[in-house]
Amino acid sequence: MQLNADNIEAYALGCAILSAGGGGDPAIGLVMAGHAIAGHGPVPVIDAADLDPDALVMPCGLIGSPTVAQERIWSGAEGAQLVRSVAGLRDTPVGVLMCYEIAGVNGLLPVLWAARLGLPLLDADGMGRAFPEMQQQAMHVAGVPASPVVLTDGRGNVIVVAAADNLAAERLARSSAASLGGTCAGALYTMTGRVARTATITGSVTGAVRVGAAMLARTGAWPAALADETGGRVLLEGRITEIERYTGAGFTRGHAVVEGSRGSQRRRLRLELQNEVLAALEDGEVVATVPDIISVLGLVNGRPVGTERLQYGQRVAVVVVPAPEVWRSEQGLRVVGPRSFGYDLDYAGPGGGDRHDMCEAADADL
Amino acid sequence: MQLNADNIEAYALGCAILSAGGGGDPAIGLVMAGHAIAGHGPVPVIDAADLDPDALVMPCGLIGSPTVAQERIWSGAEGAQLVRSVAGLRDTPVGVLMCYEIAGVNGLLPVLWAARLGLPLLDADGMGRAFPEMQQQAMHVAGVPASPVVLTDGRGNVIVVAAADNLAAERLARSSAASLGGTCAGALYTMTGRVARTATITGSVTGAVRVGAAMLARTGAWPAALADETGGRVLLEGRITEIERYTGAGFTRGHAVVEGSRGSQRRRLRLELQNEVLAALEDGEVVATVPDIISVLGLVNGRPVGTERLQYGQRVAVVVVPAPEVWRSEQGLRVVGPRSFGYDLDYAGPGGGDRHDMCEAADADL
Repeated sequence: MQLNADNIEAYALGCAILSAGGGGDPAIGLVMAGHAIAGHGPVPVIDAADLDPDALVMPCGLIGSPTVAQERIWSGAEGAQLVRSVAGLRDTPVGVLMCYEIAGVNGLLPVLWAARLGLPLLDADGMGRAFPEMQQQAMHVAGVPASPVVLTDGRGNVIVVAAADNLAAERLARSSAASLGGTCAGALYTMTGRVARTATITGSVTGAVRVGAAMLARTGAWPAALADETGGRVLLEGRITEIERYTGAGFTRGHAVVEGSRGSQRRRLRLELQNEVLAALEDGEVVATVPDIISVLGLVNGRPVGTERLQYGQRVAVVVVPAPEVWRSEQGLRVVGPRSFGYDLDYAGPGGGDRHDMCEAADADL
Repeated sequence: MQLNADNIEAYALGCAILSAGGGGDPAIGLVMAGHAIAGHGPVPVIDAADLDPDALVMPCGLIGSPTVAQERIWSGAEGAQLVRSVAGLRDTPVGVLMCYEIAGVNGLLPVLWAARLGLPLLDADGMGRAFPEMQQQAMHVAGVPASPVVLTDGRGNVIVVAAADNLAAERLARSSAASLGGTCAGALYTMTGRVARTATITGSVTGAVRVGAAMLARTGAWPAALADETGGRVLLEGRITEIERYTGAGFTRGHAVVEGSRGSQRRRLRLELQNEVLAALEDGEVVATVPDIISVLGLVNGRPVGTERLQYGQRVAVVVVPAPEVWRSEQGLRVVGPRSFGYDLDYAGPGGGDRHDMCEAADADL
């Protein structure tokens, strides 16, 4: 498998869907990745099982504010700086790039850098979707240190954070990103192929291409197509009848209400927003929560709508895509469950409904 | 020469006088350095001329807010972390510590760390006094890069800044220090002994001991003693009759007025404050400016008074101590002259009076 001119658009669409409304606009990233592929050739995508156990794997992407990133064009040279710094710190050349987050622009920047550097991309990522914090990664759950975190603005300034633990790394890298202009390129959780085989969420890149291609192949009925392709379910189709959104502590917060009908029944779905859509409630009952991916699709073209673009009157569908298995474990839910975002809710489980049963079932899977 | 239990107090007093009212309270640093000397033995002070040209010299001290540093006790282990990180980045063990700033607490922290590490201290520093910004160093004027700047909170968190230039290094290190708790330990302008011989201000440590000892030996007439010892001059003795002080952009700013008489003449001296005392004016005429060291001494005990402790009614003397030669050069004045602090003034020269003449005389010295 490789990422090339034929499938990069499907891949970008898959990344946008996995963003759950967050993750940053992939538009600029798509243009730059496409341009890099045109100039330097396709990017080979390596299966984790085929990975050289001694190869150095460098997860990378944007650190900081995706909003700032929309207004700041990348030079494309950030990847070379990251690879150089990481190789120096590890005394080993970087062999493989990896998306730390297979969502939004973070799915595309590593492709841009891999094409320019002539390096392959690992068919894996750290989140399987979008999450706002750096320690919300499968590698963190697996005990891999995030440090040293390498950050660069691509203009000759590099900051390296070596923190006492991954929470401190997140905090220090976030404020360093702020001083590098609000957003920057970063590499973190660098590990050997041996570790990457079990510590990452595998199949992410091929999965995003598959989902995106399935959606592009349709001319309608996108919500059902997404549910079919991912083993998810359509919660509701309807109109946005309420939207409240504000920025607090660096996050987009608020809620939206979607109203529609299913058969003869009038229904009303409330979506809780924190950058991503983190929970869906119907008449006060929780029907879906993070870590499952709650995706809002526009009914006009089937494209996902970011939380910052939800508008009153918009016709949308809400689809729940099951989270990667690592997040449904007890340990995973501690890192990315509803309570880690401040909601006093249990995880609803991919089937929703009686959430306590689902939660126990998920725990029993371990 | 060595720093030991007999001269560490004189040294600390010398550092306080060279602070020009800024530099942070050396009290905690003095206690900790004294304790480290008692436990680990005296610290050898090496003359720059005797320096091994290949030895790695590590200038170090506090980076961030001296105000925060007064309320945060150092663990003493910060030096070991700095030395370890710098050695790793340079692939050479650190041979000699150096104060980057021979003023306030920054004169004492490197002594504390050197004692604990069993390393010598170089008889030199980067400023010859206190300055607020990291690039206001002789090494910057000599073209030595500040990067990599190593910062640590002494609790296992390390940030390394490798910047495109020394101004960016200052900016990025300052915000990194903020994220490490407002103040932290730092190493910067690391260089070989060969470079340090010419790029630093030499004789600083022995000079501070000499000035401090001369003051401690007196039981009065301290202002005259300081002027004699340093080739400086007493501007005025009197009372503080006006004080305005506020915090802006992270600095203590404001002004103070000292009124007194000389012979039968009533005189009035206005001091401009920006952390340090940066200029003295009499009836609108400039009589002294940065980079010369404008020191305010309490007349009760001869001890220097920090700008944050100046009080209405306090009896003080204002003494000007000439700046190290590097700062009186054209290049030096660009970095630390009155205009670099936003004053539309020429450098007054160590003699004050007709400042234009003095300025030309100083330039002609080069």
